[in-house]
Amino acid sequence: MVFFRKTAILGVGLLGASLALAMRDKGLTEEISGFGRSAENLEKAKARGIIDTCHPDDPAAAAAGADLVVLATPVGIFTQIAKAIRDSIKKDSIQTDLGSLKGGLVYELEEILPRFVGCHPIAGGERMGIGAASERLFEGSKCIITRTEKANARAVDAMAGLWSAVGCEVEFMDPFVHDEVYALVSHLPHLVAYALVNTVGDTDGDLIRFAGKGFRDSSRIAMSSPELWRDICRMNKDNLLRFTGVFKKNLERIEALLKSGEPGALEREFDSARKLRSRLENENGNENKNGNG
Amino acid sequence: MVFFRKTAILGVGLLGASLALAMRDKGLTEEISGFGRSAENLEKAKARGIIDTCHPDDPAAAAAGADLVVLATPVGIFTQIAKAIRDSIKKDSIQTDLGSLKGGLVYELEEILPRFVGCHPIAGGERMGIGAASERLFEGSKCIITRTEKANARAVDAMAGLWSAVGCEVEFMDPFVHDEVYALVSHLPHLVAYALVNTVGDTDGDLIRFAGKGFRDSSRIAMSSPELWRDICRMNKDNLLRFTGVFKKNLERIEALLKSGEPGALEREFDSARKLRSRLENENGNENKNGNG
Repeated sequence: MVFFRKTAILGVGLLGASLALAMRDKGLTEEISGFGRSAENLEKAKARGIIDTCHPDDPAAAAAGADLVVLATPVGIFTQIAKAIRDSIKKDSIQTDLGSLKGGLVYELEEILPRFVGCHPIAGGERMGIGAASERLFEGSKCIITRTEKANARAVDAMAGLWSAVGCEVEFMDPFVHDEVYALVSHLPHLVAYALVNTVGDTDGDLIRFAGKGFRDSSRIAMSSPELWRDICRMNKDNLLRFTGVFKKNLERIEALLKSGEPGALEREFDSARKLRSRLENENGNENKNGNG
Repeated sequence: MVFFRKTAILGVGLLGASLALAMRDKGLTEEISGFGRSAENLEKAKARGIIDTCHPDDPAAAAAGADLVVLATPVGIFTQIAKAIRDSIKKDSIQTDLGSLKGGLVYELEEILPRFVGCHPIAGGERMGIGAASERLFEGSKCIITRTEKANARAVDAMAGLWSAVGCEVEFMDPFVHDEVYALVSHLPHLVAYALVNTVGDTDGDLIRFAGKGFRDSSRIAMSSPELWRDICRMNKDNLLRFTGVFKKNLERIEALLKSGEPGALEREFDSARKLRSRLENENGNENKNGNG
């Protein structure tokens, strides 16, 4: 059984707060310190029993003495935070993150921090902030752990144990493969959702009130944090631009079939999407169970 | 209070069956006849108490003697069905439909049927078949009624009364305006979802298992009936191709911002989408309440 006497959550948002709650719930930690930009948010988190101590603007103080240090801010500032804490972390501590981006960033963080293990729990979706935090957020979700050649094997095992304990199905993946896969199944859908909503805005924003469940579902992730997703998309832009290219080809194939009036080919195009998407229903029974990345 | 002694449901799928159940539940009809291609499906619907009599392959027999005749098949065969029933319908009956497409089709149907009122309840989404039917399906949804100059005023009032009675918020709209609006907020999102899933298929379909809630939400409508959506998209292709053009421009603007490395402009682009999409949450409290079209 994994246990970390003290845990530092650097960035107390939906994911960080939910991990804190889940670790407490399962008895995986005793004391939790929190760092964040907003003193008010940290005080709220303390009042809700998510963290025990508040360290606004001082990640090094939050990380000091912690057995597990969790980077849970937007990915764009991970490197900066890692540098800020490197001299204050406990010698045998494990450092990890909850970011949607791995790739070269994992190797960078491994250079800065002695026992870093990159983790990406596929949970959270478009929700933000501690208001939506729950000790059950990770239950039934995948968690991708990036295991590099340099990674400390015992730290990797400990993190796998932690994620299993809070209800995740753990999968190991190369950091660069992770970024390709999630460019396709997470980052691209975000760009598409932003573009879809802005298409309504370009036409007449007031028309959005006529939208039904289909539009609501397909655009829900456009409510995700613009700051967070700006960072993710920019840091993964090469993979992302490759897949926006494939996506546009698919859309243009449909446009061409509409213009040429080939009903059979159009129906086959739709049906191949229906079949592939339906796999997600069949695999999980409850298709809404898994979280978002 | 509206009341139709006998109602004919031509096409007993999710929407037709749900309307039958809702009308029974509210005491708006006494007897319901059903037409459909599948005798087996009609027998199931009869066993579940959705319809009272089955008329496989004979819409004229189902429509005979009905006070309300509901076209609830895929829109692609509405005209054919209307022609098949025109000589057998009761003289003072009202004819309506549940289709996602209005425009010229409404004028065509008004030529064939004496008291036709075009209706589009924004409900149902990607679900199909009587298994998902519910007397509560329409509660809290919009229903668009297309009122043309030729439309019979009392028939329009009766339909508005019917939809209100089953829980809809009724809005009147010109048939051609309807098709523009729904090309934007319903048909375009369907095409985008089909293209998104096929982008995964083109890359490596097995990667879909890594998808989280974001991908699931944004691609859910790709499970909609390929046959139904083939018809809708083809019949509304001019509006649809205009909006795929606007959509591609939006996606290309995001691509350009990714390439040029302008984080501020990219964040503003995402934020304008977040703000507009959030309107759907604020307006309804429960953002999942409204149905799809």
